[in-house]
Amino acid sequence: MEVRLKILFTSLCHTDVFFWEAKAQDSVFPRIFGHEAAGIVESVGEGVTELAPGDHVLPVFTGECKECAHCKSEESNMCSLLRINTDRGVMLNDGQTRFSINGKPIYHFVGTSTFSEYTVVHVGCLAKINPLAPLDKVCILSCGITTGLGATLNVAKPTKGSSVAIFGLGAVGLGAAEGARLAGASRIIGVDFNSSRFEGAKKFGVTEFVNPKDYKKPVQEVIVEMTDGGVDRSVECTGNTNAMISAFECVHDGWGVAVLVGVPHKDAEFKTHPMNFLNERTLKGTFFGNYKPRSDLPSVVEMYMKKELELEKFITHEVPFSEINKAFELMLKGEGLRCIIRMEG
Amino acid sequence: MEVRLKILFTSLCHTDVFFWEAKAQDSVFPRIFGHEAAGIVESVGEGVTELAPGDHVLPVFTGECKECAHCKSEESNMCSLLRINTDRGVMLNDGQTRFSINGKPIYHFVGTSTFSEYTVVHVGCLAKINPLAPLDKVCILSCGITTGLGATLNVAKPTKGSSVAIFGLGAVGLGAAEGARLAGASRIIGVDFNSSRFEGAKKFGVTEFVNPKDYKKPVQEVIVEMTDGGVDRSVECTGNTNAMISAFECVHDGWGVAVLVGVPHKDAEFKTHPMNFLNERTLKGTFFGNYKPRSDLPSVVEMYMKKELELEKFITHEVPFSEINKAFELMLKGEGLRCIIRMEG
Ligand SMILES: NC(=O)c1ccc[n+]([C@@H]2O[C@H](COP(=O)([O-])OP(=O)(O)OC[C@H]3O[C@@H](n4cnc5c(N)ncnc54)[C@H](O)[C@@H]3O)[C@@H](O)[C@H]2O)c1
Ligand SMILES: NC(=O)c1ccc[n+]([C@@H]2O[C@H](COP(=O)([O-])OP(=O)(O)OC[C@H]3O[C@@H](n4cnc5c(N)ncnc54)[C@H](O)[C@@H]3O)[C@@H](O)[C@H]2O)c1
Ligand SMILES: [Zn+2]
Ligand SMILES: [Zn+2]
Ligand SMILES: [Zn+2]
Ligand SMILES: [Zn+2]
Repeated sequence: MEVRLKILFTSLCHTDVFFWEAKAQDSVFPRIFGHEAAGIVESVGEGVTELAPGDHVLPVFTGECKECAHCKSEESNMCSLLRINTDRGVMLNDGQTRFSINGKPIYHFVGTSTFSEYTVVHVGCLAKINPLAPLDKVCILSCGITTGLGATLNVAKPTKGSSVAIFGLGAVGLGAAEGARLAGASRIIGVDFNSSRFEGAKKFGVTEFVNPKDYKKPVQEVIVEMTDGGVDRSVECTGNTNAMISAFECVHDGWGVAVLVGVPHKDAEFKTHPMNFLNERTLKGTFFGNYKPRSDLPSVVEMYMKKELELEKFITHEVPFSEINKAFELMLKGEGLRCIIRMEG
Repeated sequence: MEVRLKILFTSLCHTDVFFWEAKAQDSVFPRIFGHEAAGIVESVGEGVTELAPGDHVLPVFTGECKECAHCKSEESNMCSLLRINTDRGVMLNDGQTRFSINGKPIYHFVGTSTFSEYTVVHVGCLAKINPLAPLDKVCILSCGITTGLGATLNVAKPTKGSSVAIFGLGAVGLGAAEGARLAGASRIIGVDFNSSRFEGAKKFGVTEFVNPKDYKKPVQEVIVEMTDGGVDRSVECTGNTNAMISAFECVHDGWGVAVLVGVPHKDAEFKTHPMNFLNERTLKGTFFGNYKPRSDLPSVVEMYMKKELELEKFITHEVPFSEINKAFELMLKGEGLRCIIRMEG
């Protein structure tokens, strides 16, 4: 059930940096990071019938076996077999790696390991896409943008005219803002510690900005005042526990829905007074914006092809693979959104 | 906008006991408790057009002004004007009480104060019901049973064949179990510290029982094992923070929904790892089962009239008003479900 891919383009998502820094859990090193990418099938292993050499694919950190209770449920995309596993550095089939150096294993990362000219991925983690789609653009749909977009469209589900707060204006957060804009939200409030994000975020429909550092009181109180009781929806795209709590507490009682997207630290704790729930607020979380990778991702690519979704504005930098460290520097400095890494050769 | 009622029957809900013990917040004493009741309109004040003397009504602790954003929203029943306020002991109109003793005020409780032969209630907190409905039965629909029923039917919304865990098997929890039974749940798991609740709970469709005291590991782990990954829905009806956390953590990832109903202590804290949300679980809370008291409660009374809903099994005791302290004793001992208190004279 394995497929060997030639990676053409990959980009850096905060999740790579987070696990590279080993902040979330025990880590498996040496390993090849990378999970936002686009490639072409080079060869297929036993049991693979849906893909053939030459097919254009997006690898995804979470898979879809199409057999388990999650894959059969309309609500879940958390495949029992192929859901994200950040600790496993080996292939499912034989518990071995497909990378090595001088006879020693190099481990995989979330089943994708796209910072490599060639990689091996389970067929359930590959979405076959329109061969006409430009891979240097749609590669960013393989994680961050789709995650943010789906968190808003599939999970928060704002109605036309509603107000939405987005915590974190990186690529995931701006994908979420784009979802709010597509859903017809009338106010999209961007929240970030980094005010340099604000100017660029206007292109994504963000109408107002709040930097929590500009206020003495908690940012949820600021937003509740700005919106006369709270926003209708909020989407947290930071990974920071305080932002998660603020994102929940800033939604309106009676109908507000908050959605968590950021990957928390391993000993993070979400805390709030239970009365905040009793007052009829809802809290949910999502991986990959609740999209099923094989069934749903091709249609997100089509949204781009039909110009419903603009991807160019997410791409602020491009480097050859040999300069991948620049992509890390940019993200650590909070500069730009996505940096496309072009594979060479 | 006020109505004077003659109370015919009232019953004791845990919320009365909780505020009588002054566990939730600062309290206003002396006050008249009681909020689960049925009565007949005796006279109406200025501005009241919907009710007339002789109408049969259920007073409700949360109201419906029909004008505010909540009343106009399809999702919320948390009326801005008339939502539950446990601190306010006076009438909205003039900030005064309608009860006094030797010239000194006696305060109201949640706008109802039904432990009294006569009481004064804002018209927005009164549901006009079918005059044929027996008041000594439907009085219990004015809070607990309706709250539990709605928490399941309107908020948790289990599908046919699904599994539901109910935390706390008092009248509210058994109302929630009744909702799960009506929705066609195939497994209804009752969780209570008090095993004497288990036998009686069978009448409410509860199929399995778990007493957390019988296990060394947290009850959420026990339930996850029993159900191969967690229940589809859970409803917490205890007011205990640990039960709230267990109710959330015992739902299945991918699609599980947990609903909080119990009234927490004033310094309670809900804590969990944010990954439990990210794994696509949902947590919500509700007052009065998301029913709008004036618009929706009359139809719950009709469910009883059509024999879809059985109320007799919730009524385990009956006392005259002069023996109201027996109702408190029974609840404090965890004996029985609802004790009907018959007004005399
Ligand atoms: N759930 C999923 O499926 C999924 C998928 C991809 C990424 N993620 C996670 O989404 C998050 C965002 O990823 P990204 O690539 O956009 O990262 P990014 O670093 O580009 O952007 C994050 C932004 O959040 C801001 N921020 C951090 N803490 C904040 C706080 N307390 N309040 C307000 N703003 C704050 C930062 O200044 C930054 O602009 C990460 O945690 C990543 O791991 C989750
Ligand atoms: N949200 C609302 O609109 C609303 C309305 C009515 C009542 N309530 C609340 O609902 C709760 C239940 O009310 P009731 O009248 O049924 O009370 P009750 O005392 O009759 O029943 C509560 C049951 O919970 C059990 N319990 C307590 N802690 C537990 C724990 N940690 N684990 C398992 N079981 C536990 C008790 O043994 C008891 O059987 C109370 O907190 C009440 O204040 C809320
Ligand atoms: Zn990612
Ligand atoms: Zn699956
Ligand atoms: Zn009550
Ligand atoms: Zn109202």
